[in-house]
Amino acid sequence: MKSELDNLMQSKNLDAIMVLGNAENNPPMYYLTGGGHVSDALLIKKRGADAVLYCNAMERDEAAKSGLKIIPTRLGAMDELFKNAKGIFADQKIGAGRVGVYGTFDVGVIIRLMDTLKNALPDVEFVGEMKDNSIFMVAMETKEESEVARIRKMGKATTEVVGKVAAFLTSHKVDENETLIKEDGAPLTIGDVKNKISLWLAERGAADVEGCIFSIGRDAGIPHSIGNPADVLRLGKTIVFDIFPAESGGGYFYDFTRTWSLGYAAPEAQKLYDEVQSVYEKIIENIDLNADFRVYQKMTCDEFGKRGHKTPMNTEGVLTDGYVHSLGHGLGLNVHERPGSRHTASDDNRLKSGVVFTIEPGLYYPEKGMGFRIEDSYWMRPDGKAELLAEYPYDFVLPMKNWKPAN
Amino acid sequence: MKSELDNLMQSKNLDAIMVLGNAENNPPMYYLTGGGHVSDALLIKKRGADAVLYCNAMERDEAAKSGLKIIPTRLGAMDELFKNAKGIFADQKIGAGRVGVYGTFDVGVIIRLMDTLKNALPDVEFVGEMKDNSIFMVAMETKEESEVARIRKMGKATTEVVGKVAAFLTSHKVDENETLIKEDGAPLTIGDVKNKISLWLAERGAADVEGCIFSIGRDAGIPHSIGNPADVLRLGKTIVFDIFPAESGGGYFYDFTRTWSLGYAAPEAQKLYDEVQSVYEKIIENIDLNADFRVYQKMTCDEFGKRGHKTPMNTEGVLTDGYVHSLGHGLGLNVHERPGSRHTASDDNRLKSGVVFTIEPGLYYPEKGMGFRIEDSYWMRPDGKAELLAEYPYDFVLPMKNWKPAN
Repeated sequence: MKSELDNLMQSKNLDAIMVLGNAENNPPMYYLTGGGHVSDALLIKKRGADAVLYCNAMERDEAAKSGLKIIPTRLGAMDELFKNAKGIFADQKIGAGRVGVYGTFDVGVIIRLMDTLKNALPDVEFVGEMKDNSIFMVAMETKEESEVARIRKMGKATTEVVGKVAAFLTSHKVDENETLIKEDGAPLTIGDVKNKISLWLAERGAADVEGCIFSIGRDAGIPHSIGNPADVLRLGKTIVFDIFPAESGGGYFYDFTRTWSLGYAAPEAQKLYDEVQSVYEKIIENIDLNADFRVYQKMTCDEFGKRGHKTPMNTEGVLTDGYVHSLGHGLGLNVHERPGSRHTASDDNRLKSGVVFTIEPGLYYPEKGMGFRIEDSYWMRPDGKAELLAEYPYDFVLPMKNWKPAN
Repeated sequence: MKSELDNLMQSKNLDAIMVLGNAENNPPMYYLTGGGHVSDALLIKKRGADAVLYCNAMERDEAAKSGLKIIPTRLGAMDELFKNAKGIFADQKIGAGRVGVYGTFDVGVIIRLMDTLKNALPDVEFVGEMKDNSIFMVAMETKEESEVARIRKMGKATTEVVGKVAAFLTSHKVDENETLIKEDGAPLTIGDVKNKISLWLAERGAADVEGCIFSIGRDAGIPHSIGNPADVLRLGKTIVFDIFPAESGGGYFYDFTRTWSLGYAAPEAQKLYDEVQSVYEKIIENIDLNADFRVYQKMTCDEFGKRGHKTPMNTEGVLTDGYVHSLGHGLGLNVHERPGSRHTASDDNRLKSGVVFTIEPGLYYPEKGMGFRIEDSYWMRPDGKAELLAEYPYDFVLPMKNWKPAN
């Protein structure tokens, strides 16, 4: 939680931190400013002190909404930092020590800035932390209830949109090639479906800022293939629908996946889906407060392994079929954050009180033209119960309203 | 244009370039891959050779859509780069020389990566360029016709949405306090209007990825105040509506502003609006192929200065009223790119054949509760004509359908 930042700075021996960039879609800046339209800003916080925010004078009112002390600059904070780093650091009474640097920014500018700062402030050591375990990621890992409420609200928006997509798909006519057909007689495409998804999200104050995965057949067999917009929708093919929208304006994410087969399912697909669902259920039954997240990744690999699938634990090198990824991840202002579940993660990735995390086992067989994943997001409550943040049915076959299988 | 990259690398004495990050919302990566759902990737291009793209194996099909040579990695390209920079550079036959580094990425990771690369490859010099004049910004400055077509399409979507917003606003009822009232009797708020904007953009394959400005009264007097969602809409107040959406998925932007006063305008507001419009028209009449963009900023400052307003050329320090910004900027995969028009810009910021740029004079008087800006985007065609990419009327007062001023 945000209140931990000073202690985390202490533990990493940081005397101050700087955060660079926009407030939107830049989690450390959003976390400390609360978002808003502030671009290329500079936030400086000494350990134990309040943060101050340097901004472009044109954005001073947006910056002021953060509640922080604002210092407007004529040409923007970054311009000022390049020209007058010594003055800024003198004003903030930072003459020496270790300063952590955070945010998302242009790579070339950062390389130049580090040279500029080292020359201007030879007694200050500027420190980069790896993102996954930075003080921000550790602070963000445990959520306040107000943050959980925002994620839950995104979960409601997400599952409403998923329900609308399911109703939309199953209301279509089907031609003799088992292709879904629109009212104008043209086949329904993935592009059509994605346009609807964006629209229905926007109606709910959400945006698919990092895209969404809606892929069919062989593409569904590759976990991060987002789906080809021109592909048509056909019965009896697996569809992986992984949707991870954020609050409009760059806030909190939700993350959710269902796998569908329209009209009917091939027996092999049904069998594989059932395996994924039974592994999902086994994991959920076993989730415990403060457990090491990696334990569940191992459990998932064991379960899939004993059913004859490749997993990251029984196979070396690049994995392209079987269970090819890790079980889940934390979720918040970043779509992927702590805790992580890779079997190579450190042992502090635990399901502590306050974490919000996904559980998402899957199986992938691109050469068979099929893939499967089930994903929900959970909050580990202070009472030790893992609460599902948005409910949605687990049906694999979605019956078509205007089509029935031949007997 | 993209075809200039090798020459630009030569002119900056770069033997190779690396681009880091996602394809979406990361212009250098989008420019070379064509977008798609590729995250935390690594692109390497030697001068005179084709680019290769290291990606996460889960994203190999998305990466392949770029048409580049793809190298899938088990845990992602960045992981591979940290662990095996020497191997990657040996495979690409880069043993020494200067390598430019580009993209948008996590700041802490970049600081660490630069240390790692310097240690692993002591004979390679890794170079950061300032973003505004990097080889990418110079290449992107002049557009191919296919790029202009995409920007024009965003212009059409943008002006359609602006027209819908105008019709939406003017269709509302007005109460005795001159506040716009919804059907349910509650006042119409800026938040309501912004929700409609997001929705209408999504319907057109566009997204306000960097937000949009819809601000009224005093907020309109501060160029980058985006507007307070809870503020109600009232007659006779200036509304600055600056909308800069991009193609969904992180592609090309459009940029557009109108200033409105609903129902009627205060005489002082009308006078200031007319000044902005006449300066806008004077600039457009004078635009010439290959002219120095700064000339028009000076012309704008002269015009506003002789009407008694403060400008960046007649005032030192932080400017908060008058004409407080520069005249325009290039536009493409970045909402702000070359050419620039600040009077402190370098003399190679010219209106060359192929540039797409905004013209956006404005006046700001926050203490009077008013602000004004008119902005359109133009393409400098090869035949030397500056083509307006999307037409929209310049009316200041928007008559309300259900309200008339008392006589």
